[in-house]
Amino acid sequence: MEGLTIRRAQEVVDEWISQFEDGYWPPLSMLASLMEEVGELAREINASEGIKRKKETEPEADIGLEMADVLFALICLANYYDIDLEGKFKEAMEKYSKRDADRWIRKK
Amino acid sequence: MEGLTIRRAQEVVDEWISQFEDGYWPPLSMLASLMEEVGELAREINASEGIKRKKETEPEADIGLEMADVLFALICLANYYDIDLEGKFKEAMEKYSKRDADRWIRKK
Amino acid sequence: MEGLTIRRAQEVVDEWISQFEDGYWPPLSMLASLMEEVGELAREINASEGIKRKKETEPEADIGLEMADVLFALICLANYYDIDLEGKFKEAMEKYSKRDADRWIRKK
Amino acid sequence: MEGLTIRRAQEVVDEWISQFEDGYWPPLSMLASLMEEVGELAREINASEGIKRKKETEPEADIGLEMADVLFALICLANYYDIDLEGKFKEAMEKYSKRDADRWIRKK
Repeated sequence: MEGLTIRRAQEVVDEWISQFEDGYWPPLSMLASLMEEVGELAREINASEGIKRKKETEPEADIGLEMADVLFALICLANYYDIDLEGKFKEAMEKYSKRDADRWIRKK
Repeated sequence: MEGLTIRRAQEVVDEWISQFEDGYWPPLSMLASLMEEVGELAREINASEGIKRKKETEPEADIGLEMADVLFALICLANYYDIDLEGKFKEAMEKYSKRDADRWIRKK
Repeated sequence: MEGLTIRRAQEVVDEWISQFEDGYWPPLSMLASLMEEVGELAREINASEGIKRKKETEPEADIGLEMADVLFALICLANYYDIDLEGKFKEAMEKYSKRDADRWIRKK
Repeated sequence: MEGLTIRRAQEVVDEWISQFEDGYWPPLSMLASLMEEVGELAREINASEGIKRKKETEPEADIGLEMADVLFALICLANYYDIDLEGKFKEAMEKYSKRDADRWIRKK
């Protein structure tokens, strides 16, 4: 998986899910999973920013791995809806370019 | 941007952010943005699943574009923490393979 | 509704929902609504903390009203599962007292 | 705490927080905590709806207690901003009455 494209990541997830009888969960369940993963990421970021003291029994934080869990949950939803995340990402970047052109102060 | 890799997507976001004086927001602000985008995705999925009637004044749903907004917010956070999302994604897939091997029923 | 108890707030929500043919939505839809409201609260807090510049067309923030929307969404879920939120809140406060007794530094 | 009002619940939380030197966390940290609690609630609801199989080592679900954690996190934020959650809740209920009067089908 060297130089993994977003498209290939979507295929990898699809191959993973396709092994199991359950297949994709209903979209609202996958959305709940996405919320769960974003919540875990929130905990790690709060801990990393020095705010929340973790219980000593809690495992070492790995913010990157929590982010990957969020990405996985997002890709599951995208696959369910047959969405080309790469195309949509490009579309979003163009939208930001137009929308936010005068919203932020550009460096000189 | 043909065959966009996750790594290249991280660079594209970095180039975009680097144009502006503000640069990356503090991580807890970027996390709040991620929550906001997940919330918008939740609204579109609820609408698409036929539950929530949208106000007539609300624009047409585009679930894919909402997903791209989530991905953008996630990549901003990953860049801030210098996280290689591709590497972490592969690591997560391996983790699932070990952890969930007996948790789900495999197809025959 | 002077001196509104949590219990009475749950009844108020139940009376409101009971007017409509749909009744309570399925729990995963109500959860998605909760996420939507938390996302809107996140946007207002980000704006109030001075991070995110709002579009000029966006309405004036009312953080309190966004919080009430979160509370409403939470109460809908609690009612669906027949949960006594007041009793559970007391239980949670006791749990914190035990769990966090030595986790934080007490004032002298 | 019999017949706990929302106002009293806000005081109870304030008394609890006031014991500690840290006091209230910065609002974006409390928001991250709210997300964390909503994520845990999402996990329990997904489990209760029969979708997600929990690991055997995971503790028994208590959806009500997770809801109380969400309520606690919300009240912390409300207290920080000096928001009267009861007043805002009433305001929200009036807003729904006007806004949604024709959006849903009333029972006959």
